[in-house]
Amino acid sequence: MTEKIRVGIIGYGNLGKGIEEMSFNYPDLSLEVIFTKRDPKSLDTSIKAEHMDNLEKYVDKIDVMLLCGGSATDLPNQGPLVSNLFNTVDSYDNHNKIPEYFETMDKSSKLSNKTSLISTGWDPGLFSLNRLLSQSILPKGDSFTFWGKGVSQGHSQALRRIKGVEDAVQYTVPSQEAINLAKNGKGKDLTTRDKHDRICYLVLEEGADKQAIEKEIVAMPYYFADYNTQVNFISQEKFDKNHRHMPHGGFVIQSYKNEEGINQVMEFSLKLDNNPLFTASVLLTYARAVYRLNKEGKFGAFSVFDIPLSYLSDKSSETLRKELL
Amino acid sequence: MTEKIRVGIIGYGNLGKGIEEMSFNYPDLSLEVIFTKRDPKSLDTSIKAEHMDNLEKYVDKIDVMLLCGGSATDLPNQGPLVSNLFNTVDSYDNHNKIPEYFETMDKSSKLSNKTSLISTGWDPGLFSLNRLLSQSILPKGDSFTFWGKGVSQGHSQALRRIKGVEDAVQYTVPSQEAINLAKNGKGKDLTTRDKHDRICYLVLEEGADKQAIEKEIVAMPYYFADYNTQVNFISQEKFDKNHRHMPHGGFVIQSYKNEEGINQVMEFSLKLDNNPLFTASVLLTYARAVYRLNKEGKFGAFSVFDIPLSYLSDKSSETLRKELL
Repeated sequence: MTEKIRVGIIGYGNLGKGIEEMSFNYPDLSLEVIFTKRDPKSLDTSIKAEHMDNLEKYVDKIDVMLLCGGSATDLPNQGPLVSNLFNTVDSYDNHNKIPEYFETMDKSSKLSNKTSLISTGWDPGLFSLNRLLSQSILPKGDSFTFWGKGVSQGHSQALRRIKGVEDAVQYTVPSQEAINLAKNGKGKDLTTRDKHDRICYLVLEEGADKQAIEKEIVAMPYYFADYNTQVNFISQEKFDKNHRHMPHGGFVIQSYKNEEGINQVMEFSLKLDNNPLFTASVLLTYARAVYRLNKEGKFGAFSVFDIPLSYLSDKSSETLRKELL
Repeated sequence: MTEKIRVGIIGYGNLGKGIEEMSFNYPDLSLEVIFTKRDPKSLDTSIKAEHMDNLEKYVDKIDVMLLCGGSATDLPNQGPLVSNLFNTVDSYDNHNKIPEYFETMDKSSKLSNKTSLISTGWDPGLFSLNRLLSQSILPKGDSFTFWGKGVSQGHSQALRRIKGVEDAVQYTVPSQEAINLAKNGKGKDLTTRDKHDRICYLVLEEGADKQAIEKEIVAMPYYFADYNTQVNFISQEKFDKNHRHMPHGGFVIQSYKNEEGINQVMEFSLKLDNNPLFTASVLLTYARAVYRLNKEGKFGAFSVFDIPLSYLSDKSSETLRKELL
C-alpha cells in the first residue's frame, strides 16, 4: 500500500461531521485533524482537534485541507488564507460570486504552489458536471435542473425569522408533472411556479396569529411569492419526530427533440436521505484529485470541469479501462 | 469565429448517417467528407463521398476522423491504420478486448503524433463515466447497470438466424421491480433473470413451426436461457409498422446505505428514441476534445476517463464557471 493522503477539516458543523463519518470509506485517505474556531476540547470527536490559530503548524502534516465553512461569511475570508498554506477543497456555493472567488483562490494558491478545487459538492458540483455534459452532447435541447424533495436551509431560516415562529422547516418539492413535461421535450414554457412547490412546517409560539403568519409567508418576495406555497402548523412533538432529517436531491435533465419528433433524454438524479453526508462524500473523493494535481505540478484554482474523472478513483487507468469502461 | 474543426466519417451505416444528421447541431464542427468501402456514388448524401482508397489524400484536410465501423471486424483493423494518419474517435464496444485495443491504438497514434479516443458513445462511454463517478464517490455502495427498454442488435440477429424466421427484433426490458430494489439499497442479490426480460417479435415464413421455434429461443444458451423470455409472433405488416425504430437507453445506479439506514442514491439514465443518433451526438462532442488534446501535444490513446468535461464544450472555462457551475 502506498502512503495515505493526509486530510484535515476546517469547521465542525454538519459538513465537517459528515466528512469525519464518511472518511472511513476511503482506504487511501487518512483524516488527521479537525480545526475549529471554538475550544478544541469542546468537540465530541475521536479525531485530533486543534484551534484555528495552530493552522500553520500543520503545513507539512496535511496534504489536502477540506474547508467546511459557509459560503456567506466563512469561505470568502478563509479560502484565500488557507489555500496559501494548503491544497484545498471547498463547496463554495454562492453562484453569482463564483467567478470572483475562483480568481481570488487562483492567486492565493499559486503564490505557494498549492492546488485548490472550488465549488464542489452536488450543486455546484455533480449537477454542474451533468449540465456541462448533457448540454455539450445535446446542444439544441432544453435544459432543466429540479431540486428536491429536500430541506432548503435558506428558506427554513426565513421562516424562523418571522415573529411568533418557534421552529420551522421548508421542503422544496419538484412538480412531477413539470418533470414529465421536461422529459418529453415539452418543458420549454415552464415557469418558476410550475417547477417547484414549497411546503412549510411551523411550530408557533403560544398566542401567535396563524392567519397573519400564513399571509406573510405566502407573500414573501423572492422566497415564496413566486411559488405555490403550502403552510402547515404542527406541534413541537410532531416537528421533532418527523422533521429533523436533512434529505435532499434533484434532477438534471436535458431533452432534445428533432423535427421528426425523435426524443433523446439524458438525466442525472440524486435521492439523498442525508444531504451533508453526501456533500462530504464528494469533497473526500475530490481530495484525491487535488492531491494528484498538486503532485503533477498543476497549481492554482480548479473547478470540477477541469478534472478528468479518473483522478477521482484510487484505481489505475489500466484497471478502470478493464473494469468500468 | 475561430476556424471550424474539420471532421470526416469512415463508414456510412446507421452511425455514420446519424453523425451526418447531427453534425449540423455543433456550430464549431464542419463535416467535410464521408469515406466508404462501397462505390462513393452509391451514397445518398449531400456531403462529399470518397472511397477508402483515397484516405491518405486527406491527411492535411481533416482534423478528426470519426470511425463508424463495427467492433467485430471493422475497428480492429481500421482503428490502428487510421489512427496512424488522423486523430480519431471510435465507439469500440467489445468490453473484453478494450485493454488490448487501447494498447494497439496508443502505439499507432503515437507513431505519428496523433490522438485517439476509443470506446465512446453511451455504453461504453457515458455509462462508463457514471460508473466511475458514482463508484468513486460512494465506494461502499452497490453498483447496477440496467439496459433498455431497447433493441439489442445481437439478440435480434440470433433470432433471425433461426430456420423459419423471416424477420425479428428483440427488446431488452429492465425490470421495474429490480430497479426499485437497486434504488432502495436492496438489490445485492438480484440475478441476471431478475434484472432484465427479453421480449421478441418474430415474423415467420409460411408453414414454420411456432412451438418448435419458441422452444428453441427460450432455451438458447447465453442469449436467452438465463432470462425470462417472451416470444410473440406477428404479421409482417405489424412488424413494419411498430418495430422499425431503434430505441434504447438504461440506468446506472449507485446506492449506499449506512448502518443507520440512511440511503444515498446516484442515478444516470438515458431514454433514447434513436440509439445510433445519440451515439452520433456523443462521438461528435468528443471530436472537440480530441482536437484540443492533439493541439496541446497530448498524443496516443485516451478513454472518456482521461478527459476533463470542459474539453467537450465550445465555451471558455470562464463562461462555463459563470453559466454552468
